Amino acid sequence: MTTLNTWVSVPKNSDFSIYNLPFGIFSVDGDEPKAGIAIGEQIVDLSALANLGLLDVNTTYFRQSTLNDFIALGKKITNKVRLDVQRLLVLDNSPLKNHPEVFIPQEDAKMHLPVRIGDYTDFYSSIEHATNVGKMFRDPENALLPNWRHIPVGYHGRASSIVVSGTNIHRPMGQVKTNDMETPVFQASNRLDFELEMGFIIGKSTKLGERISTKNAAEHIFGLVLFNDWSARDIQKWEYVPLGPFLGKNFASSMSPWIVTLEALEPFKVQGPEQQPEVLSYLQYEGQLNYDIQLQVGMSAQTSDETVISESNFKYMYWNMMQQLAHHTVNGCNINVGDVMASGTISGKDESSFGSLLEISWGGKKPFTLCDGSQRTFIEDSDTITMRGFAEKEGIKVGFGEVSGTILSSK
Amino acid sequence: MTTLNTWVSVPKNSDFSIYNLPFGIFSVDGDEPKAGIAIGEQIVDLSALANLGLLDVNTTYFRQSTLNDFIALGKKITNKVRLDVQRLLVLDNSPLKNHPEVFIPQEDAKMHLPVRIGDYTDFYSSIEHATNVGKMFRDPENALLPNWRHIPVGYHGRASSIVVSGTNIHRPMGQVKTNDMETPVFQASNRLDFELEMGFIIGKSTKLGERISTKNAAEHIFGLVLFNDWSARDIQKWEYVPLGPFLGKNFASSMSPWIVTLEALEPFKVQGPEQQPEVLSYLQYEGQLNYDIQLQVGMSAQTSDETVISESNFKYMYWNMMQQLAHHTVNGCNINVGDVMASGTISGKDESSFGSLLEISWGGKKPFTLCDGSQRTFIEDSDTITMRGFAEKEGIKVGFGEVSGTILSSK
Repeated sequence: MTTLNTWVSVPKNSDFSIYNLPFGIFSVDGDEPKAGIAIGEQIVDLSALANLGLLDVNTTYFRQSTLNDFIALGKKITNKVRLDVQRLLVLDNSPLKNHPEVFIPQEDAKMHLPVRIGDYTDFYSSIEHATNVGKMFRDPENALLPNWRHIPVGYHGRASSIVVSGTNIHRPMGQVKTNDMETPVFQASNRLDFELEMGFIIGKSTKLGERISTKNAAEHIFGLVLFNDWSARDIQKWEYVPLGPFLGKNFASSMSPWIVTLEALEPFKVQGPEQQPEVLSYLQYEGQLNYDIQLQVGMSAQTSDETVISESNFKYMYWNMMQQLAHHTVNGCNINVGDVMASGTISGKDESSFGSLLEISWGGKKPFTLCDGSQRTFIEDSDTITMRGFAEKEGIKVGFGEVSGTILSSK
Repeated sequence: MTTLNTWVSVPKNSDFSIYNLPFGIFSVDGDEPKAGIAIGEQIVDLSALANLGLLDVNTTYFRQSTLNDFIALGKKITNKVRLDVQRLLVLDNSPLKNHPEVFIPQEDAKMHLPVRIGDYTDFYSSIEHATNVGKMFRDPENALLPNWRHIPVGYHGRASSIVVSGTNIHRPMGQVKTNDMETPVFQASNRLDFELEMGFIIGKSTKLGERISTKNAAEHIFGLVLFNDWSARDIQKWEYVPLGPFLGKNFASSMSPWIVTLEALEPFKVQGPEQQPEVLSYLQYEGQLNYDIQLQVGMSAQTSDETVISESNFKYMYWNMMQQLAHHTVNGCNINVGDVMASGTISGKDESSFGSLLEISWGGKKPFTLCDGSQRTFIEDSDTITMRGFAEKEGIKVGFGEVSGTILSSK
């Protein structure tokens, strides 16, 4: 990769290096939300840049509360905006040096959900996670269901309850029936969990009846975010047969505010796991379509420090995003700019890389200890879950920041 | 009910009587879509009425391609608009008599999807349908799953692929694996089905964490439509365990264009079926919350007349809409104006009232005959499915028009 040096001060280990430049929506002091690009600890105000005549896109596209209309302009334009900003941040005689007002400190900004999400799909594409869940919920001898290696299994989730990082979540109430109960009871979930996921944001719509090939799928993916698919395991267990998860999931999902573009992640492509048996032709692909993104989950009780409870990697995914998109549209289902498709829980092979408490505490049977000495099986009130992710190679780092959320008591 | 007589010519048996006055979005000659109310064979152009100063709502609310912003004004305002139009259509000295331009013949108008749908939820609330499916897909002796009488079971569907009546649908392709196959194949679905449903449109949003009681649920329901949840049974069967239906459903769902308000349906409330065992307190309700709406499904091959293949009734629903909404939000899941929640297939007790071909042909084992003499188990290319619905009492009729769709060959 070409070495790039920016004249903006960027902390050495920043997720938001000159190679990254993710898009987000921010506001300052209660003003209207608008679009920005993160660099180091700053945000470049894209509407201000456009007003200065430094971008080819009209400022109205950046003075909106979501990125949808901007993204819909297409990659030719959105990529050029990103590269134009990169050039302005590298140039010795950059016109931006005379315009400090286009830089907003991230600590002064409030971040918002970056897109208006039409539909949200959640996949189930980690073979380790699917196997672990199958062992616990179903048959340990036949943990993986017969369709799993043939289909990137997915289901529709709730778009309305996706919130941005930093939003607190009330513990959901719901119907629970454990094996020792004769009839269900209504109570606060006491098996509240997270799921470590990544989500991708649709960048190009299709019409009903159109199909996307694995070869063309990347054109339809604008970028990626970190995604926490909060899950109430007790509610889920009682409700999910036969039509799938519903209230056990749709009380909230959290996503990180900065969309890291697929182009910024290009250097971090790696080969995915071998798929056996061979998949059907519409799911076959060429090249490296997995991404080496290191993931971490931290958990902290109200006043204590954080304990790292999982270290996983997006590269473990059995089914890659291009296969997911090819499958999702193979029946003609249409997708829209701003749709979110999440990976499903990203677990690795060993316990330290499990992406949910269901797996870490093995269904609640193996309590673990936080650094303050307290024990956990599932999430307790006032606990905070923070997920982080970054790719790194040859000294170049492209990170996602974090998605964080605190669980409040039920109401 | 007070007898109302309109000076507009309304055919005797019209769904769109002076008692109904449903809202929809229409366009003429490729002009911009706008809001209207149906009366007989005409559409009242609401933007024209507002321009004449005859409504309390600014015309900009009606000059939009969806009803969302209008509906979001709240029932106090939307009900008043409907009653104001009713009065104008009844008054002997109505100012509208001098303004024939506000009436558009329905045959000259193209109807559009009436709302921008944020999220779509499909319930599974007919006990007869759930029992029939359970007998075929699972265990005949324990057809109804243990949670069914405790939970208004539902799942999230795909909002993007909901289309308005009259939209043709290509037969979906997908993965299929029948019991006699060793591995799945990719092919056009050959068990393509409809599902006779009704949908309700959310009229009032909630915030994340809010709960709706069965008592307050009606405030959040703007009105109802007919809904055909097209289903590819072979794709569904192979994919749906464990996370529920996905590509077997999301290639398309069709809805009728006119939203019949809950207020227009008020006279047709009836008592629902007794619920045993007693439901949890958040699902209990007072009064009559089922609706007596007669439903009919017609099927026709390309050039032949229509055969009525099902006659059912919305009153059969075991779980009513208010219970569905109370359940959907009991965990704090938020809802938005324009969201669609469908009932699930509405089957009655006997074969003539089954709401899907899966049930009518009993999983393909019992072919039936159309009026042109041809036999069917599932839908063939060029077949048209048309659903109709109306409520009628003491000579007063409130109908939904129809939702119709033709299946084209796969592509």
